[in-house]
Amino acid sequence: MKTVLITGADGLIGSRLREALKEIYRLKLITAEPIEGETTIQTDITAMDKMVQACQGVDSVVHLAASPAVDTPWEEILHNNIIGTYTVFEAAKRAGVQQVIFASSNHAVGSYEDEYVNKAAAGQRELLNHLILMRPDSYYGVSKVFGEAMGAYYADHQGLRVICIRIGWINPDNEPKGDPTKPSPAMWMSHEDFAQMVQKSIEADKVRFDIFYGVSDNQNRFFDLEHAKEVLGFAPHD
Amino acid sequence: MKTVLITGADGLIGSRLREALKEIYRLKLITAEPIEGETTIQTDITAMDKMVQACQGVDSVVHLAASPAVDTPWEEILHNNIIGTYTVFEAAKRAGVQQVIFASSNHAVGSYEDEYVNKAAAGQRELLNHLILMRPDSYYGVSKVFGEAMGAYYADHQGLRVICIRIGWINPDNEPKGDPTKPSPAMWMSHEDFAQMVQKSIEADKVRFDIFYGVSDNQNRFFDLEHAKEVLGFAPHD
Repeated sequence: MKTVLITGADGLIGSRLREALKEIYRLKLITAEPIEGETTIQTDITAMDKMVQACQGVDSVVHLAASPAVDTPWEEILHNNIIGTYTVFEAAKRAGVQQVIFASSNHAVGSYEDEYVNKAAAGQRELLNHLILMRPDSYYGVSKVFGEAMGAYYADHQGLRVICIRIGWINPDNEPKGDPTKPSPAMWMSHEDFAQMVQKSIEADKVRFDIFYGVSDNQNRFFDLEHAKEVLGFAPHD
Repeated sequence: MKTVLITGADGLIGSRLREALKEIYRLKLITAEPIEGETTIQTDITAMDKMVQACQGVDSVVHLAASPAVDTPWEEILHNNIIGTYTVFEAAKRAGVQQVIFASSNHAVGSYEDEYVNKAAAGQRELLNHLILMRPDSYYGVSKVFGEAMGAYYADHQGLRVICIRIGWINPDNEPKGDPTKPSPAMWMSHEDFAQMVQKSIEADKVRFDIFYGVSDNQNRFFDLEHAKEVLGFAPHD
């Protein structure tokens, strides 16, 4: 049974993920606040010593902790998403962790979205693949490009295996509500599909570095899923 | 006559560039130390107020200031190359500057280099184009991916025009010396060719955002130059 450390395990996404994975892996949870009935670790993710300690004995880190709002100001992005993400990769390396799964975001390529969702709504759907040039729509998006780049560096030069999931839209209601001509429903991802993608990433022992779009198979989807199907065997349920 | 602000104007590259451009543009120079006979500005590039002041009345910023060594430790990269580059883009926007030319680097895609230089040496040259997925070889390279991403954001959402030049190898002797099967000579750029590329970038009023490789037309060149020729009219002399 692998040991998996989840950062941000009490966030919107982390809360669902830890429920889905708790029977499959031995989980270690970094959370903002203690959770009743669970063993958790509270630390700022920029604290290197504590992060190295948290990474001891871990096979895979699922790094979700970040300021999640697209309009987060620069100073907060710098601390939580840039310095924090560097610290997670470096701590994982120092502790001998094999793999980091980095929660990237559609916002790393967000400036393409209006064009692609309009094409899809007009019945002329084109798919964005994972190799396309970054085009972030915010400081938040820039921080996700940064995290992917840091992941590539640690994969190519520091011995980690790294998978980046560009998460679309995961919401509390777990339903793709809203105007279907807007980007959000077209990039919706169900809690179950996200958990499946993370689990298949954890099991993908031969992937040195890769990037996948984290979306369900939505009607107006404009993010490619073929790559995740081929490499991970991802099979979206929703 | 346009006004051009050069950051790092007393560095290896900046020193040659300011000589080449001084008859063509009204120059403002940010330098580490004063230069005899020149009006210069000394400021840490992370000092927002001073950077906004330096950007007043400027048409184009050529942002060269950075820790240039590929093995620079993270903490220094964070301050000079990450926070510094954010500050330059934000100061330029606040001061109403039209364009930022960002000195990116081959190290943003450095993990491809061994493979491509070996192919070229074996007579099976393939060219890396500017759209290829980032693959940095160092924290330095990560900081250059970050700068390009920040540039894309400011171009797409904050009204700046941004050109990123992925500089190959510019050396003091201005000669492509060394083993031709190694990456450096294959990505050499002469001082004159760099000045030409910067000048043509400054004049490229219609380019909202783009990325070009900054190399001369070397024997084993593996970085694409067609894109710079087409968009900028770049014509390498060396």
